[in-house]
Parts: sequence; structure tokens; C-alpha cells
Amino acid sequence: MEDEETHLTQNKQIILKNFIEGRNPRETDLEFKISKVSLRIPKGSGGVVVKNLYLSCDPYMRGRMRDFNGSYIPPFVPGSVIQGFGVSKVVDSNDPNFKIGDLVTGFTGWEEYSLLQKTEQLKKIQPGDIPPSYYVGLLGMPGFTAYAGFYEVCSPKQGDYVFVSAASGAVGQLVGQLAKLHGCYVVGSAGTNQKVDLLKNKLGFDEAFNYKEEPDLNSTLKRYFPQGIDIYFDNVGGSMLDAALLNMKIHGRIAICGMVSHVSYTEGIQNLFMLITKRIRMQGFLQSDYVHLFPKFLEFIISNYKQGNVIYIEDMTEGLENAPDAFAGLFSGKNVGKKVICITHE
Amino acid sequence: MEDEETHLTQNKQIILKNFIEGRNPRETDLEFKISKVSLRIPKGSGGVVVKNLYLSCDPYMRGRMRDFNGSYIPPFVPGSVIQGFGVSKVVDSNDPNFKIGDLVTGFTGWEEYSLLQKTEQLKKIQPGDIPPSYYVGLLGMPGFTAYAGFYEVCSPKQGDYVFVSAASGAVGQLVGQLAKLHGCYVVGSAGTNQKVDLLKNKLGFDEAFNYKEEPDLNSTLKRYFPQGIDIYFDNVGGSMLDAALLNMKIHGRIAICGMVSHVSYTEGIQNLFMLITKRIRMQGFLQSDYVHLFPKFLEFIISNYKQGNVIYIEDMTEGLENAPDAFAGLFSGKNVGKKVICITHE
Repeated sequence: MEDEETHLTQNKQIILKNFIEGRNPRETDLEFKISKVSLRIPKGSGGVVVKNLYLSCDPYMRGRMRDFNGSYIPPFVPGSVIQGFGVSKVVDSNDPNFKIGDLVTGFTGWEEYSLLQKTEQLKKIQPGDIPPSYYVGLLGMPGFTAYAGFYEVCSPKQGDYVFVSAASGAVGQLVGQLAKLHGCYVVGSAGTNQKVDLLKNKLGFDEAFNYKEEPDLNSTLKRYFPQGIDIYFDNVGGSMLDAALLNMKIHGRIAICGMVSHVSYTEGIQNLFMLITKRIRMQGFLQSDYVHLFPKFLEFIISNYKQGNVIYIEDMTEGLENAPDAFAGLFSGKNVGKKVICITHE
Repeated sequence: MEDEETHLTQNKQIILKNFIEGRNPRETDLEFKISKVSLRIPKGSGGVVVKNLYLSCDPYMRGRMRDFNGSYIPPFVPGSVIQGFGVSKVVDSNDPNFKIGDLVTGFTGWEEYSLLQKTEQLKKIQPGDIPPSYYVGLLGMPGFTAYAGFYEVCSPKQGDYVFVSAASGAVGQLVGQLAKLHGCYVVGSAGTNQKVDLLKNKLGFDEAFNYKEEPDLNSTLKRYFPQGIDIYFDNVGGSMLDAALLNMKIHGRIAICGMVSHVSYTEGIQNLFMLITKRIRMQGFLQSDYVHLFPKFLEFIISNYKQGNVIYIEDMTEGLENAPDAFAGLFSGKNVGKKVICITHE
């Protein structure tokens, strides 16, 4: 509701309270706050004002909550609105490339309305058969991470034995489906029986297991891969990575996509000697190094989605006020599928 | 001396007493023993009898002293003679490819005389300008490990910043020289000031340091590589690998050649998250995967050796009875350069 005198509108926001260090984010690290914003763009300022519809909850955002400038992306500012990928609708524009009503995706604020100056990072979405929220998931950074990681880092071959951890997550669920399309045998791990069921019965994984019910991950992987693992797509690090190292085949490939597990930093990884005996290539990557492939990715995924070869599971939280809880839940595996916050559907 | 009645000759031997587990080899794990051997090859048995001249002490042999069959090479047999690479002279032959007096290199026993049945693994050495012992070092497995690891795993470019650990060792000293020939900037680490001096003043490294005098390897590497490391050729693992991970450049490469440090297995490697933020490729390798390149390697190294572009530092121990001490010394860094045992010079 715009105030007639001030032209200011209420703007719900999510603020970072303080930097965190050496632990996972908690709901209380973020603050829900109501502020005011002008929906009219200041003349000559450039940019657009958008109404945010969907916000993406991504594990990499943990890194922006630390007081550390040496990473590939700068930290958030305590006391200010946090940012992330989102799907938004243009409500005012000083940029000839965007008109009021356009749907866009790109970096935005965790708030109802944002003034975005860097419009070159925004991409226009054509309304169509695909849910707009998929542009921060299947067709966004997580989907492209799966695509670039699997095809460009894992060197997959038909018949390869592929293991995916955090397999029902935003990235893992697509990695598994791409591996199946490629003719691989795919096993996924997840942290609840509900997720295991999704992997086997919805996402087409050959096998899946609940790692929380497995006392010895080394024997678990031996059971699922008696012949060894060709490709491990690692979203977690920690003791799962250590167990996978023991079960890799000679000349296996490990794509290091994420390290949600804190064991990676505290206890460390013990079995790297396997890299030598099994001549393993282990490679970290970021999707941003492969942007030249993005158009090809989009075409490939949209086509496969429309043919029903690929599906995508979202876990939608309604209401910005529930965003802190939704975000913190990522690190305890509360989300089932890609976590998205819906501020409003239109 | 041959016994006239039995045709048996005294044969000094080195025996593995018992398997070891979870620790480095000690002198007392090996036993010096005198046995008897026939220097005449049994009729129709095939193979050759050789007099062993030089034996190679290599860190990988630690792995053969464990009761573990899952590695790329089977364990030694307790109570029996251990094996390794050597340079030998044929004293009797049932194989038309080898005649008495031929110099050969390949797997042999740690003893004065050996009966070798698998002659297909033996290579003939042409006597020439190159010391025969170099065929277990510069022109043997360690030299080829350096060559294959540097050119095939590290993806080197002119101007790259290269760090080599255990840099004066059998492999490291050649990696550094190859990197210099390739137009790279090269820093090496070693465990004594004598070795550091060799690296800087004999082997042509740009810089070198004694890691035992450095309280914080992370700051040490920052000092030597203010702009970061493109290539880390890792011969040690452990805390040096952890420090290197923190100092890699984006898109850096780490070749995992050896893990002498026990920290790799006990405390683990903590900084693997850097693989993601810096998009590092970390690859274990064995020279045996690159045998198709061996002839090219030999030609390249012999030519560069003759032109004085490459030198090789050996640390020769005289006498088989001193072999247990020489071998154990590998794991405390007692050797200065490639460790070779000379049983006899001819």
C-alpha cells in the first residue's frame, strides 16, 4: 500500500544480524523487519524497481555470512538486507531493456521490493509452460551447477557407476537424472526415508539409501557398488567423501560441488592416499566458470523437461517472514527438494 | 665364491621380518642374512640369473610391507627377500634375448644374485656416458614419475608458479628442473639446510626453504608465492598439502605423487573446501599409466642430460648390509637426493 503523501510502501525485509563463524546458520542469525520503500525509480538513476516473487535458498549463502573477503563472492553486510537469486516482476523501470510487468531472474534482495541498479545481470523470463520459480532451480544456478559439473567435470561415459550425495537436493536431483539419461547406473544418498523414496520412485535413481541409518558408510558403499564407483558427485564432503574415496574405481572422478558437512573442516579428510593408488581426479568447480554453456544448457533442459525426461522437486515456503527458518533448515536437511521462498505468486 | 661340489655360492640377502602397520619402516623390520644360491640356471626353466649391482630405495615400498592386497602392487612375503628396481648384470641365461654380461634394469631381489623368471619386464642398458645407477633414478621410475606427473597431470604453462615438496628427492629434483626448462618459477621445500642449498645452487630452483624451520607453512607459502601457486607437485601430503590448498591460485592444479607425511592419514586434510572456491583440480597418478610415453621420456631426458640441462643427485650407500638403514632413512629424510644401494660396481 503506497502512502499517498510520501509515495512510500511497506517493505518486508530479511536482515543479517551479525557475521557467524565456524558454525551453520541459525534462524536467529536473520531478522524479519518491516521498512519503507519507494516504488518509483529516481529519475536518471537507471535500473529497475522489482516486486520479488520467489527467492532461492542456497547453501553457498552460508559463506556470505562470514566476515571473509577472500572468497569468490563478497560477504553480506550486517544490518542490511541479504541477497540471493530470485524471480521478480518489474514495477518501475529506467532501463529500456525492461518494461513494467516483465518477469526477470537474477540477484535481488530478500525483501518484497528491490531497487536493482545492475540490470546487466538480470535475465528476462518468457511466461510459458514452465513454473517461474524453476528459474532459480532447474533452470537456474542449481540446475546449471548439475549440468556443468556432470558433463564438464565428471567426464561421464555410458555404463559408469555414479554416486550422488545430498541426492534429492537442488543440484543432486538433476545430477542423478542427467546420469540416468546418459546411461549410467545411479545411487543417491539422502537423510530421510521420505527422500530415499523420492529418489527411487520419482527421480529414477537405481538405488538410494538413508545415510543416517548406515553405521559404516564404507560398507554401505561397498554394498551398493560392489564393483566400485566411477563418478562421485559430492555435495557434502566429510565422512561421505572419505568413504567414497575408499570405494572409487581406478581412474574414478570426484566432482566437489559442496561441503555442507562440517567434518570436512574439523576432522579433515583421511583417505586422500586413495587418490594415488586409484589415480583419482578430484576437482572443485563453480558453475560460473561455464557460463558460455548456459544457452546450450537451457535449451537441453527445457526440451527434456517438456518431453517428461526430467522433473524437478521444489520445497516451497510461503511468506517472507518464514524465510529465516527455511534458510536455516537447509543445513539440517529439512528441505525436501529445492528450497524456494514464495513472497507472492504474482 | 662357488662351492665346487654343490655349485652353490654365498648370497647376501635382505629379508622382510614381519608386516608393519600404521607406522614408518624401521631398520629392524629388515634382516640381513647370508644364504646360498646357484649361479647356473636350471635347464629348461627359462629366465636369467643376475648379479645385482644397484638397488633403488623408493618410498612406495612402504606400502608393500603391509598385509594388504588391495593396492596396485602385492605385499612382500615375510621371511623372504624383498624386491625393488635394480640394475643388474646377467651371469647365466636361458633366454635368447639376454646374454651373459648384459646390463639390465627392472625388478630384482634385494640380494647379491637373483634368479629372474619374468624377463619380459627387464630392459637392456647400453653402456655409455650415463652412470648405470641412473637407470633406477633419473632414467627410471622416479624420473619418469616426475616427467609424467609434470607434463601429463600438472598442465604446465610458461610463467606458471610451481611449488614442489620433498624437492631434492628422487622425483622432486627432476620436477623442479623440468619446470624451469618449461619457463616456470619454481620453489622447493626440503628438510635440511644442506638440501635447500642444493636446490638453490645446484638444481636451479628460484627459491627453496627448510620446512622444519617454518612455524606456519601457510605464511611461508604466502611469502614465497604472494601471487599464489599455479601448480603444486605434492610428494608429502599432510600439513604441507593443507597449507598449499590455502595458497593455490584459481584453476590451480595439484599433482598428488606421494604422501610420506603420516599426518595425511591421522589428522586428515582440512582445507579441501578450497577445491571449490578456487576450482582446483587435484589428481593422483602413477607413472605406470603412462608407459606409452616412456620412449619419448628417455629420449628427452638423455638429450637434456647430455646437453647439461638436467643433472641428478644420488645418495649412494655402499654394501648390501647397510641397506636396512638406508631404506629406513628415506622416511626421516636422511637421504640427500635419490637413494641407491650399491652392492658392487661391476
